[in-house]
Amino acid sequence: MKLNCDLGESFGAWTMGQDEAVMPYIDMANVACGFHASDPSIMATTVALALQHRVEIGAHPSYQDLVGFGRRSISHTPEEIRGLIWYQAGALDGICRAHGTRVTYVKPHGALNNDMMKDRTVLRAVMEAVASFRDGLPLMLPVTLQADQHRELAGQIGLPLIFEAFADRAYDDQGHLVARREAGAVHEDPEVIVQQALSLVSRQGLCSRSGQWLSLAADTLCVHGDNAHALEATRLIRKAIREQQASA
Amino acid sequence: MKLNCDLGESFGAWTMGQDEAVMPYIDMANVACGFHASDPSIMATTVALALQHRVEIGAHPSYQDLVGFGRRSISHTPEEIRGLIWYQAGALDGICRAHGTRVTYVKPHGALNNDMMKDRTVLRAVMEAVASFRDGLPLMLPVTLQADQHRELAGQIGLPLIFEAFADRAYDDQGHLVARREAGAVHEDPEVIVQQALSLVSRQGLCSRSGQWLSLAADTLCVHGDNAHALEATRLIRKAIREQQASA
Amino acid sequence: MKLNCDLGESFGAWTMGQDEAVMPYIDMANVACGFHASDPSIMATTVALALQHRVEIGAHPSYQDLVGFGRRSISHTPEEIRGLIWYQAGALDGICRAHGTRVTYVKPHGALNNDMMKDRTVLRAVMEAVASFRDGLPLMLPVTLQADQHRELAGQIGLPLIFEAFADRAYDDQGHLVARREAGAVHEDPEVIVQQALSLVSRQGLCSRSGQWLSLAADTLCVHGDNAHALEATRLIRKAIREQQASA
Amino acid sequence: MKLNCDLGESFGAWTMGQDEAVMPYIDMANVACGFHASDPSIMATTVALALQHRVEIGAHPSYQDLVGFGRRSISHTPEEIRGLIWYQAGALDGICRAHGTRVTYVKPHGALNNDMMKDRTVLRAVMEAVASFRDGLPLMLPVTLQADQHRELAGQIGLPLIFEAFADRAYDDQGHLVARREAGAVHEDPEVIVQQALSLVSRQGLCSRSGQWLSLAADTLCVHGDNAHALEATRLIRKAIREQQASA
Repeated sequence: MKLNCDLGESFGAWTMGQDEAVMPYIDMANVACGFHASDPSIMATTVALALQHRVEIGAHPSYQDLVGFGRRSISHTPEEIRGLIWYQAGALDGICRAHGTRVTYVKPHGALNNDMMKDRTVLRAVMEAVASFRDGLPLMLPVTLQADQHRELAGQIGLPLIFEAFADRAYDDQGHLVARREAGAVHEDPEVIVQQALSLVSRQGLCSRSGQWLSLAADTLCVHGDNAHALEATRLIRKAIREQQASA
Repeated sequence: MKLNCDLGESFGAWTMGQDEAVMPYIDMANVACGFHASDPSIMATTVALALQHRVEIGAHPSYQDLVGFGRRSISHTPEEIRGLIWYQAGALDGICRAHGTRVTYVKPHGALNNDMMKDRTVLRAVMEAVASFRDGLPLMLPVTLQADQHRELAGQIGLPLIFEAFADRAYDDQGHLVARREAGAVHEDPEVIVQQALSLVSRQGLCSRSGQWLSLAADTLCVHGDNAHALEATRLIRKAIREQQASA
Repeated sequence: MKLNCDLGESFGAWTMGQDEAVMPYIDMANVACGFHASDPSIMATTVALALQHRVEIGAHPSYQDLVGFGRRSISHTPEEIRGLIWYQAGALDGICRAHGTRVTYVKPHGALNNDMMKDRTVLRAVMEAVASFRDGLPLMLPVTLQADQHRELAGQIGLPLIFEAFADRAYDDQGHLVARREAGAVHEDPEVIVQQALSLVSRQGLCSRSGQWLSLAADTLCVHGDNAHALEATRLIRKAIREQQASA
Repeated sequence: MKLNCDLGESFGAWTMGQDEAVMPYIDMANVACGFHASDPSIMATTVALALQHRVEIGAHPSYQDLVGFGRRSISHTPEEIRGLIWYQAGALDGICRAHGTRVTYVKPHGALNNDMMKDRTVLRAVMEAVASFRDGLPLMLPVTLQADQHRELAGQIGLPLIFEAFADRAYDDQGHLVARREAGAVHEDPEVIVQQALSLVSRQGLCSRSGQWLSLAADTLCVHGDNAHALEATRLIRKAIREQQASA
């Protein structure tokens, strides 16, 4: 079970996140590509930092919306979606190659991620974009109760998938994240977060908000590093997984 | 002697140039990468058009200045210059690879091009960026009386160079283009343009504005397709070069 | 019956529309404010041109989406909508005041215009923004069968309204424009365009696509100047209205 | 002696500065206008905060360079400079008027400020822009040994000036700020900062780095609020000036 984290989200003179602090605890860095955050210099710094910690580098492409941080849905044609993924993944890959490495997966950011999980046309465009960018490059997407359908759709174009789950977020009975505006959407108690992480690791699932068992076979957990609290949770998840693996 | 042309310079809803009209007459398309012009969708369309006409695709990176079309000098550190070249060349290369091709050279645009010809620190940063982007990828730059120095500098880092000259621009005795604001900077007479092209092809040089011979060994001529006049000149240059080669 | 036209839609090095050609035929210029098109220099040029032809200047604010020309809906809070209208109307008003004139109305552009006609929360935010920008400044919006409701809503905050209709677009039976993707959405025949304009002037309404009478009391007609065809239609509408007024 | 501070420099999801902490200690807020920092929502929040603390609001316009925070010189024509000042001052003034207040001065930011102090053409364009924006609106600029020349130039077009000085920066013998890259450019010792502030208040001048007396009649001191250290210095300056005025 790998830990992935959104990184490289500073922009120009503005700093966001604590990339140096969280990098030692993660396996996969989802690196912003300039459309919702980051710029070429910050991307180069982030790639160098990931390399130093032997962390995999994934492209984290977004709708073009700096002021909205890529969190607002913007209607795009499939052609436009393919273009923006090729552009951003390519930009990061260019910086990676100059550092002797490569982008090893793609994870859409924010509203683009939400839209692909809701709209089959968007999902297909994203899948086609990643599949045509490089043979065998995987797409990372949230694991849901529809994971089999997603696997089948991806299989038709030979696209590998990486499924991610969240240790610090409550799920509803349909296997979706509870919206942030609802009470209890985000787990604050480190103990609860660690237990959800361990459940995802050892039992391939978790209990929904209402107590129902959800079978969710995740390949990676999305963790956070943007504040001290999130950083501490990430450290605890890493430690708990290591201990479990050691005892297994 | 290949013909290269700046293309893909539309942006969003705005159109610039006559890419479809000029593409059949050229060998190398310098494709804008989104910092001074173009967007991912236009880049994808331009790459597809170039492929259709078997035209080589070069990255045409720029300072980030859409409103100024990359024509204004903006001070950058060497790190920043490397970052913006990797980013833009990578973005175009990503789109190329999704179309089964690759970027085959890099030609800086506008003020970045001017600055690298004036400032050795900028030139070195550009050269390092292209050399580290991909082994053997050439940099296209204007041929001047300093071509040997440029060749030596590039040789130190194993960077191939492609030298370009202009058939429709007057040169001063130092081998630089006469500034556009000066009278006679741009040749209007198609006959003069064709003669300068043929001189560059067969005699590896041209006569400066004052009549002095300049030895300028160009690999490629930069032609234009942004209006009917430029398009006609491009057609005539292509025709004259073909006839000369046939008779040789 | 005044004629209004979207103008100042060039950007940086890119030209759009034929502002100089259409300005003599209109009464009100809806000037882009930099979020979907234009930049400060183009705005200044447009304001000077409007002044020269004694044309009223209206702010034409948009969502911030240059690459999408403001045509894509982007979710905003009411606070954000007010902010972007104040910002853009203020920017244009600043340029106007430096030229000795003022913005005399506000007409939202593209997706922001569509969204306010579909979503009461957006409409209210737009109305509040215009009302608080300057006392008595009117909002221009499409006339529909809901015009009375719009008038009532605006009346509650003391906001004057200007209703606009289109001479070159087909309307459905609900009084909405037929979507451009549908056949017959845009009238091509100048005779049909002129007849619809005259019907709006003298009979305060028009016939829907299915032949049903729609009572639509417009204060202004939106005309176009972005190509020769549109320009000719604008000239004919102006001429027909003048002749009708002369004969009345 | 008023205290002015650059504020409203957050952007979208990114935060910069501690506006709420510093606002109670200052008299004049130089509010970013979206070209180097800020967006319409942040500008509205900043205006509301300034109003709450009865702080004057000045426009802080910049070259259009978000990623470079307006710190890089970009060549502009006088027309372009006027346009970008009208645009940005107008945008902020629009937001101010919606809140029942007005912009009361203009202070150029970063590279635009540096350029106007070095280049008479730029300075003239800035002065003309502010003078034509609104009668009697003052321009804030650094006080130097050339203040009389600046006053004369401004007087020719009826432009009031506000001269600012820095308590926390060393000056060279020519009355210019010592460049930040040089040792001793920024005073770290609060005692030194307060002494320089008091010297500017009571003796209308300060000692240069080499110990030479510089007669600099400042109307306002530029203070900072972007970190705890700067904030503390601002509090001490405010306190020292109050005590001095009380004892006078």
